[in-house]
Amino acid sequence: MCEALRLAKRGGARTYPNPLVGAVVVRKGRIIGRGFHACFGAPHAEVMALGEARSITCGATLYVSLEPCSTYGKTPPCTSAIIESGIRRVVIAVLDPNAVHHGRGKELLKRSGIKVTVGVEQKAAEEQNASFFKYHKTGFPYIHLKMAESLDGKIASRAGDSKWITGKPARRFVHELRSKAQAILVGSRTVFLDDPRLNVRLSGNRRRRQPVRIVIDPDLKLPLGLRIFKTARQDTWIITKASLKSSRRWRCLERSGVRLVPVPCRSGKPILRRAMRELARCGIINILVEGGGETAASFLKERLVDKITFLIAPKIIGGRDAKTSVEGDGARKVSQALKLKNVTMRKIGDDICIEGIPAYCL
Amino acid sequence: MCEALRLAKRGGARTYPNPLVGAVVVRKGRIIGRGFHACFGAPHAEVMALGEARSITCGATLYVSLEPCSTYGKTPPCTSAIIESGIRRVVIAVLDPNAVHHGRGKELLKRSGIKVTVGVEQKAAEEQNASFFKYHKTGFPYIHLKMAESLDGKIASRAGDSKWITGKPARRFVHELRSKAQAILVGSRTVFLDDPRLNVRLSGNRRRRQPVRIVIDPDLKLPLGLRIFKTARQDTWIITKASLKSSRRWRCLERSGVRLVPVPCRSGKPILRRAMRELARCGIINILVEGGGETAASFLKERLVDKITFLIAPKIIGGRDAKTSVEGDGARKVSQALKLKNVTMRKIGDDICIEGIPAYCL
Repeated sequence: MCEALRLAKRGGARTYPNPLVGAVVVRKGRIIGRGFHACFGAPHAEVMALGEARSITCGATLYVSLEPCSTYGKTPPCTSAIIESGIRRVVIAVLDPNAVHHGRGKELLKRSGIKVTVGVEQKAAEEQNASFFKYHKTGFPYIHLKMAESLDGKIASRAGDSKWITGKPARRFVHELRSKAQAILVGSRTVFLDDPRLNVRLSGNRRRRQPVRIVIDPDLKLPLGLRIFKTARQDTWIITKASLKSSRRWRCLERSGVRLVPVPCRSGKPILRRAMRELARCGIINILVEGGGETAASFLKERLVDKITFLIAPKIIGGRDAKTSVEGDGARKVSQALKLKNVTMRKIGDDICIEGIPAYCL
Repeated sequence: MCEALRLAKRGGARTYPNPLVGAVVVRKGRIIGRGFHACFGAPHAEVMALGEARSITCGATLYVSLEPCSTYGKTPPCTSAIIESGIRRVVIAVLDPNAVHHGRGKELLKRSGIKVTVGVEQKAAEEQNASFFKYHKTGFPYIHLKMAESLDGKIASRAGDSKWITGKPARRFVHELRSKAQAILVGSRTVFLDDPRLNVRLSGNRRRRQPVRIVIDPDLKLPLGLRIFKTARQDTWIITKASLKSSRRWRCLERSGVRLVPVPCRSGKPILRRAMRELARCGIINILVEGGGETAASFLKERLVDKITFLIAPKIIGGRDAKTSVEGDGARKVSQALKLKNVTMRKIGDDICIEGIPAYCL
């Protein structure tokens, strides 16, 4: 199963909204077939592993990191391929969290006389597909909040300058995070001030997919000259007030290739929970939120964040008016602050990377 | 020499304003005497080591972490004791930085026919007495800035609550820092909001000395009911405007046992460099600055800080109006931010301790 989980990882971000899956066929103690789901639309891991094993699958055991599918999607159901192959036993790490599929594959295999075991390395398998599990269990995308700040918590100088707080290795790490994300989200202030490209810039990434760029711009005020609008080859989505639908600005943006996501508002701001549910409905199951401070605060306040990464540069920007990594209203008392659990720290170049899980997730 | 440096450490903070000194007498490859300067007024390390070696010092070698003194202070000059003992060779880590003594001890020993070597483990010896060296070379105290903040750089909630940001082990560590400091300094806002005791609370510390408490209160506005004024057994000093001298408030504070340090002002604030020079003149050679954000910013802006320790709690307080660890005006551009060098990081309990040296020091 560990080999199946290892294989699954090779799918990377290209499988969205499908999960990562790895499979291994074992016969007489020897691996005779390996497979993984490489990208959306490609053959499933089980079929690939069975294919590699050729015709000697009869009586063998299949290890798969997720319950095999039992329905027609982009490819025929894996259960049929497994049953036809003559596999005697199937070991599944974890059942499919999708209510439509949950347990169905297992039942179909059992009914065909195949011995089925479920729950081997279940935790690792769930963690590997954290987005997929969160999405199907809650209807919300998995949200990873990443902030880069100075030692004193600033994400920009008092004048709004933010280039560059962290060093090259940390920025490279951010591009790696982006390359694993299905979408990147930022607030409109960040887009306006920094004019970011919000794409993955890693050597060897040219032919890979770019994440969807999502901006929260309640009043559709961002000028069209910004980079995210000009680089049209990559998807750009805007979360905005539902009331602006069919306004001139809306139509203009739509014409330029931007996808608009209308969301009802509360006190002038799109309701974040509604926005996330809407994005999930559009097939976005994984988002990297990259700030700024007000956006980070809103996501944390609504308890939408599943993982937190802070990159801290060993420098002091200072400034009572400089923006910090988490703004909003903030906690009234220190005892009400959001605690992080499972905290890890390490150096990335000269910078310090602190990661953790919000306490409300555990 | 390593043994001498190790012994020197045992003096701790009780030697201020004297340096830490350790000494070892070696004869025929064997250590026959050890000594260290235990506290201000106590025998010097050399004399203690020679005393332990008794009468068999003739022909032996003395290793000492700082140039032996050559003048009468609280105790007779060490050079005389060394010459009388019949020591043949003296190895000195580093010469005394005090211009009055610099090289004099060495010369006296040489003139008596003793072989003298200088510069063994010099860097380690200078680091061990960083305060002493800075004080004598520059006329300023050695300043260690310590801040405790949340992951997003906040030192208090928007409502001013700051208890407790870090956990017990980190707070214990702060008391250890305090126990090594000659003085602790905070701004008046911090005293007013937190009403701290600013003392060392470690088990086993009862009989040890407490650091001097120094508060910057330009307008002498702090109410007398605060803990730092009520716990009179410990020294409390206030840095204030020279123009308030002989005001009613001044006299009232003086009567209650507070020592007032008058400093000329610039735009309503005491000139920090002048204040530090004045404190050095009063014998304060080592200060732990504990905030708040405006005080930290002033010290950093004036390039008075020699070492920085940030304790970061893995929690998020948030709040656009919450105070951060370094306020002031701040850098205009990120490229002008103060960089830290020789950065180390480690966990203290659940918290993260990041330490470094301001780049301008190197």
